[in-house]
Amino acid sequence: MASGNSNGSDKAQAGKIKKVVLAYSGGLDTSIILKWLQETYGAEVVTFTADLGQGEELEPARRKAELLGIKPENIFIEDLREEFVADYVFPMLRANALYEGIYLLGTSIARPLISKKQIEIARATGADAVCHGATGKGNDQVRFELGYYALEPSIRIVAPWREWDFNSREDLIAFAEKHQIPVAKDKRGEAPFSVDANLLHSSSEGKVLEDPNVEPPDYVYQRTIAPEDAPDKPTVITIGFAKGDAVSINGEKLSPATILARLNDLGRDNGIGRVDLVENRFVGMKSRGVYETPGGTILLAAHRAIESLTLDRGAAHLKDELMPRYAELIYNGFWFSPEREMLQALIDKSQEHVEGEVRLKLYKGNVIVIGRSSPQSLYSETLVTFEDDKGAYDQKDAEGFIRLQALRLRTLGLRNRGGA
Amino acid sequence: MASGNSNGSDKAQAGKIKKVVLAYSGGLDTSIILKWLQETYGAEVVTFTADLGQGEELEPARRKAELLGIKPENIFIEDLREEFVADYVFPMLRANALYEGIYLLGTSIARPLISKKQIEIARATGADAVCHGATGKGNDQVRFELGYYALEPSIRIVAPWREWDFNSREDLIAFAEKHQIPVAKDKRGEAPFSVDANLLHSSSEGKVLEDPNVEPPDYVYQRTIAPEDAPDKPTVITIGFAKGDAVSINGEKLSPATILARLNDLGRDNGIGRVDLVENRFVGMKSRGVYETPGGTILLAAHRAIESLTLDRGAAHLKDELMPRYAELIYNGFWFSPEREMLQALIDKSQEHVEGEVRLKLYKGNVIVIGRSSPQSLYSETLVTFEDDKGAYDQKDAEGFIRLQALRLRTLGLRNRGGA
Amino acid sequence: MASGNSNGSDKAQAGKIKKVVLAYSGGLDTSIILKWLQETYGAEVVTFTADLGQGEELEPARRKAELLGIKPENIFIEDLREEFVADYVFPMLRANALYEGIYLLGTSIARPLISKKQIEIARATGADAVCHGATGKGNDQVRFELGYYALEPSIRIVAPWREWDFNSREDLIAFAEKHQIPVAKDKRGEAPFSVDANLLHSSSEGKVLEDPNVEPPDYVYQRTIAPEDAPDKPTVITIGFAKGDAVSINGEKLSPATILARLNDLGRDNGIGRVDLVENRFVGMKSRGVYETPGGTILLAAHRAIESLTLDRGAAHLKDELMPRYAELIYNGFWFSPEREMLQALIDKSQEHVEGEVRLKLYKGNVIVIGRSSPQSLYSETLVTFEDDKGAYDQKDAEGFIRLQALRLRTLGLRNRGGA
Amino acid sequence: MASGNSNGSDKAQAGKIKKVVLAYSGGLDTSIILKWLQETYGAEVVTFTADLGQGEELEPARRKAELLGIKPENIFIEDLREEFVADYVFPMLRANALYEGIYLLGTSIARPLISKKQIEIARATGADAVCHGATGKGNDQVRFELGYYALEPSIRIVAPWREWDFNSREDLIAFAEKHQIPVAKDKRGEAPFSVDANLLHSSSEGKVLEDPNVEPPDYVYQRTIAPEDAPDKPTVITIGFAKGDAVSINGEKLSPATILARLNDLGRDNGIGRVDLVENRFVGMKSRGVYETPGGTILLAAHRAIESLTLDRGAAHLKDELMPRYAELIYNGFWFSPEREMLQALIDKSQEHVEGEVRLKLYKGNVIVIGRSSPQSLYSETLVTFEDDKGAYDQKDAEGFIRLQALRLRTLGLRNRGGA
Repeated sequence: MASGNSNGSDKAQAGKIKKVVLAYSGGLDTSIILKWLQETYGAEVVTFTADLGQGEELEPARRKAELLGIKPENIFIEDLREEFVADYVFPMLRANALYEGIYLLGTSIARPLISKKQIEIARATGADAVCHGATGKGNDQVRFELGYYALEPSIRIVAPWREWDFNSREDLIAFAEKHQIPVAKDKRGEAPFSVDANLLHSSSEGKVLEDPNVEPPDYVYQRTIAPEDAPDKPTVITIGFAKGDAVSINGEKLSPATILARLNDLGRDNGIGRVDLVENRFVGMKSRGVYETPGGTILLAAHRAIESLTLDRGAAHLKDELMPRYAELIYNGFWFSPEREMLQALIDKSQEHVEGEVRLKLYKGNVIVIGRSSPQSLYSETLVTFEDDKGAYDQKDAEGFIRLQALRLRTLGLRNRGGA
Repeated sequence: MASGNSNGSDKAQAGKIKKVVLAYSGGLDTSIILKWLQETYGAEVVTFTADLGQGEELEPARRKAELLGIKPENIFIEDLREEFVADYVFPMLRANALYEGIYLLGTSIARPLISKKQIEIARATGADAVCHGATGKGNDQVRFELGYYALEPSIRIVAPWREWDFNSREDLIAFAEKHQIPVAKDKRGEAPFSVDANLLHSSSEGKVLEDPNVEPPDYVYQRTIAPEDAPDKPTVITIGFAKGDAVSINGEKLSPATILARLNDLGRDNGIGRVDLVENRFVGMKSRGVYETPGGTILLAAHRAIESLTLDRGAAHLKDELMPRYAELIYNGFWFSPEREMLQALIDKSQEHVEGEVRLKLYKGNVIVIGRSSPQSLYSETLVTFEDDKGAYDQKDAEGFIRLQALRLRTLGLRNRGGA
Repeated sequence: MASGNSNGSDKAQAGKIKKVVLAYSGGLDTSIILKWLQETYGAEVVTFTADLGQGEELEPARRKAELLGIKPENIFIEDLREEFVADYVFPMLRANALYEGIYLLGTSIARPLISKKQIEIARATGADAVCHGATGKGNDQVRFELGYYALEPSIRIVAPWREWDFNSREDLIAFAEKHQIPVAKDKRGEAPFSVDANLLHSSSEGKVLEDPNVEPPDYVYQRTIAPEDAPDKPTVITIGFAKGDAVSINGEKLSPATILARLNDLGRDNGIGRVDLVENRFVGMKSRGVYETPGGTILLAAHRAIESLTLDRGAAHLKDELMPRYAELIYNGFWFSPEREMLQALIDKSQEHVEGEVRLKLYKGNVIVIGRSSPQSLYSETLVTFEDDKGAYDQKDAEGFIRLQALRLRTLGLRNRGGA
Repeated sequence: MASGNSNGSDKAQAGKIKKVVLAYSGGLDTSIILKWLQETYGAEVVTFTADLGQGEELEPARRKAELLGIKPENIFIEDLREEFVADYVFPMLRANALYEGIYLLGTSIARPLISKKQIEIARATGADAVCHGATGKGNDQVRFELGYYALEPSIRIVAPWREWDFNSREDLIAFAEKHQIPVAKDKRGEAPFSVDANLLHSSSEGKVLEDPNVEPPDYVYQRTIAPEDAPDKPTVITIGFAKGDAVSINGEKLSPATILARLNDLGRDNGIGRVDLVENRFVGMKSRGVYETPGGTILLAAHRAIESLTLDRGAAHLKDELMPRYAELIYNGFWFSPEREMLQALIDKSQEHVEGEVRLKLYKGNVIVIGRSSPQSLYSETLVTFEDDKGAYDQKDAEGFIRLQALRLRTLGLRNRGGA
């Protein structure tokens, strides 16, 4: 089988991979990749299967890997849910990160963690290569590979979708059958769209979604009900924050992953977190995606609300101005870059006093803030009141404030009139 | 009566105002100001009453002004709705402007237009001063006065709320009664909150809203019904755009103000556009506001959607990064500043090809984009498809792309390991 | 001869180029490329030779092209100096563009114009391909090719240095001799460094310059004398500006290219404009370059000086904040991108009143501003004076200004103390 | 004597100051202020005199304070040079901060430290007020007072220049003589310009400098010789860096203040660091300043050079984009603000690997980098070489890189042509 190895200098040494760590879901595609790696590169394959909250059991992946001839010591399975939420999702939420004004970056933020784990396993097992199952048109290949390279600059990367000669679903199925890879009946045809899921979100792309002028069919949505189907009665909850991170729901202290999981349930039941957008991929084309981020959508609203009370204007506006850049870095795969880390240092610095409670009403797709309180509040009823404020604010100060703010505009006005 | 003229150099010449143009609503407060101006400054008062879509008739203001002794030639009444939407609201919406991530700037954007008209009338009538009814703790005083000063650098500004000695509602009512200003019964006590309204939004602030941990009572909302009270059936509409501005609803070409008015009705009926937030005022304190922007909220979602199809990534991301700055300038009152005009030039440049149609579902507080199409679309199904793209995109290009993106990270990785 | 055509989908059709427009200098390297194109692709070659002020005559290039078998109607020679300065250099200088704080972008800014002309000639001659002589490690390949693609999306691009199999200078010389391309004696060995030149600057890179810890040898510098060798007596000049562009020297109105040429002479004679830096290439590695930009260095200082008098603070600071982004876009080759055009619209908007005269002292590497004046000046001696300013500025306004600026900091201070 | 106490709410309580900490230089102006405080407010005065490297002895200030009746326990004198450089100047230099492209912020950066010390002394001595000698038209009043308020929100601030009724130099001299304050003969007339000095710089403003079209007379310069008067032979030095800060000169480890002092000497002798500019003050007008920053100018060039070798592109460009904002914050007096601290966290994060040595040639006003080396260098001769790089870089990667960078521009080009 041709391995497409005429492309680039590394490929000239295709045969030389000894051991490769594959990000393995246990599904059909990564099982095909597993076999293809063995056949094309003659390499020992190490599988890595992670629980990031995608809602699938992991043990079937172990059995499937064994079935495909992977040695037990080469099968790595890990529950990463807490690490994922605590070290990736929450830091990102501190920034109120939204890509292109709308997308909560649910897929983007999972990739760096998988990359990191694959590199750690490569080091532990002496592997000289890593492999992912992302296609050659998407963002995920970039995110995986920038992660690999940043953490292990001399690692060899195998990207089967860019290398192999399969041209159609039929080719893949044929290869699977030839190698005794079980193919579920519903996988034989083309899937009507492609999905990704983790504790933060589910995404759907491609096929039936490719015309951005056509509403997504209902069956595309996987983890939220439609606003129309949500209860007629609102659900009211309280989220507690400390140092910018959610730490409790309705007064109950919970771990990061538990908080996100509970909010996912609440969001799902109230039709919250659906987004249907056309976005700009890093590789240069526009694509249409449908995202469901139930818990994340609630957290974003709550975080902004607690910040509104506890963050100074200077801090808040600086964060807002830098947020699009930060979101773009994560979307493009630059989590492990100095500029992302610099921005994170800036953001984390701002969160020291971001604590308190936010009360929210969840209702048919809406997340409505109905109260916020904080021991670190910067809001002062005395200052803001129309009533007598007992000298907290001297209205006459405003005149000087305005006059000096206006000074340059007055000078300009005089000049421009003269110049006209 | 003391005029507070001990504060600032201009005040020393308080008596010298000859003619002053007052932004006059016809309500109790600006009627009191009118009388106070006559009494304190002995000045001829010119009233200016504008229809910005606040939903009040203007002729009563004329009669009231006449009653208070204003000469007919000194009463100016103008319908500014089309100018307001075409030259202020729409340019701002091109930027997707949101202050602090949430507020659509409905009050902020109306002030520059009022300032501009007052100055024009001052020139036409030979007035040497202008006067507004904004208080000394808010943003509006800044917005009015920066506008005045930018357009007429040597204008004399009177800000009664900062100058006079009234200390309570009772003082004001007493002054009104002494001067035969009619006082409606419901104005005798303290209003439970303070409002502002125009075609873009209504705002409510103060009093019952001052505790940010208490949900706004229902009666605060003035132009939207609650999501819970909205119809169970969604409304689907189509908005057409040209050069970044809305130009039609459901295929019908409409003027800017008509479009906004219709969308306001649609938004109101579907419980859309309520925002309850704690914001940072330019004068330095936090305040809590409740805003209703039904049509504007729909337009923002629609505009982002049509941009998602027609705007290049480079243009879109640059706009997103500069948006918070642009919004801050408008919020702070710098509409007539070179930096706002520079940003507007940048934004307008980006909108040349922003045209097409967006289909939206309005449902109980939700604005859901369900389709977008454009003759200027940059979205290519051929490019993005998982299927055979007939050479539109060579997946192998991605390898080189990633490898060069990674080069600096690999170099860093090698360095940092060595340095560790 | 192998054409390296195994790489990428376009290459599979290597033989199918009919006519290719080559950016042709007349030198050895592009003459080799010319022959290689004829041989490898069997294509009709059109040569384009431009005068961008590099200081070489163009007619020898015509003769050489004829000698290599190019038909007279396929030889294009154009003097682009005025277009280069008026439409590329001056717009960039309006932004005070500096890459990485230091580099005036002399090479970067020339590439888009060459790309544009090649595409125009391709259209005029019915050519289906363009070709440049930039190597595969540098920025110039990116700049040329982004220009080609932006202006003619379906153009075929040939980049010989990335394609051919020559591995050494010897290979190239052998190819040249085999094809009767004249090889000057001093070209037989390796050049000690590589150069580029145009009216704005000369650059030197590579070889003897590759160790950034070694001072460049004197012979590297091509168009400036060393500060040490410059006259002991300063030269004083006056540059006039209109709408942000230089329009005169010492009162004499001159064309853009003439101004730059004269300032180059003045700069050269006074040892001005040398920069030795380590920079970050777009393709991911650091490189060391030596640049000489005599006239541009003088213009930058003069432009900043005239802006200091005529630009409002808001405009000036916004420009300063966006400048690094603008410079990066030009460096990376994105001249023909919507984001560069948007930033240009913003910058140009700011320059409407940037006019006046700047007096400069040129002395042994220094450009010292010694005076600036403008009919559009915003500087007011009355405002700034320590003396009696006749009421232009009320010092008491400063108290209110400061107190409101401080309000949020005081609130923070109280909160943080409580929270500590 | 009238104390101008009609302005603002605090003033109404003018008589109530018990103890005030005065920033006291020992010069005529602050001695007048000292007396004026005693007389106007009847307050106990505490003097604070700091050595920030302004080049004056401190003991005379002590004697003068005693002479004016200050109790010994109320006289505070402190050598702050090391703290000033280590905690203020060096952090700022890490950012390569320049205000308006040119000014190294030598005055701005000293004010926060003085504010901080005054507040500390106010706490230690139980003072309820602080006082500074800055005028009502400048930036320094803002810097002092924002510092005071941020660190001690309820402190009472006295700003004599904004309060008192002296209208001329004569008034001040008369007051001094009346109170037996010694007046040096050369202080009797108007100083021809006003100065400020510390270890980082000297500034001169006003009077003979007020016409920006007139070259500063030679006697304005206080701590540098003119380039023309500098030696004909260059001085070559090496500066060592660790974590972004200078730590050695010519291999000798030195304390921060010692390094700056030595570089000041070297800069002075070589005519380095003079700047003559028109700048935009925070209070709204333009002013003309002459600054001398000999050591700082050398450090800035050296720091950029060591960063060029050790900072990744992503880090470097992010810093460059944020620098103008950071510089503006310091200029405007917001050192003690959350946004400055957030930016500092970002900047400091970037400096972890900024170490190595820079060799510089100082010559008649020029600071010329002639070499840089670092154990943390990211520069790779192997990567950048035109020669065989042994596979470090595959030139063919550039094609894919460019093609994906171009994809959106090609799509745009196709669209725009169709749309035209």
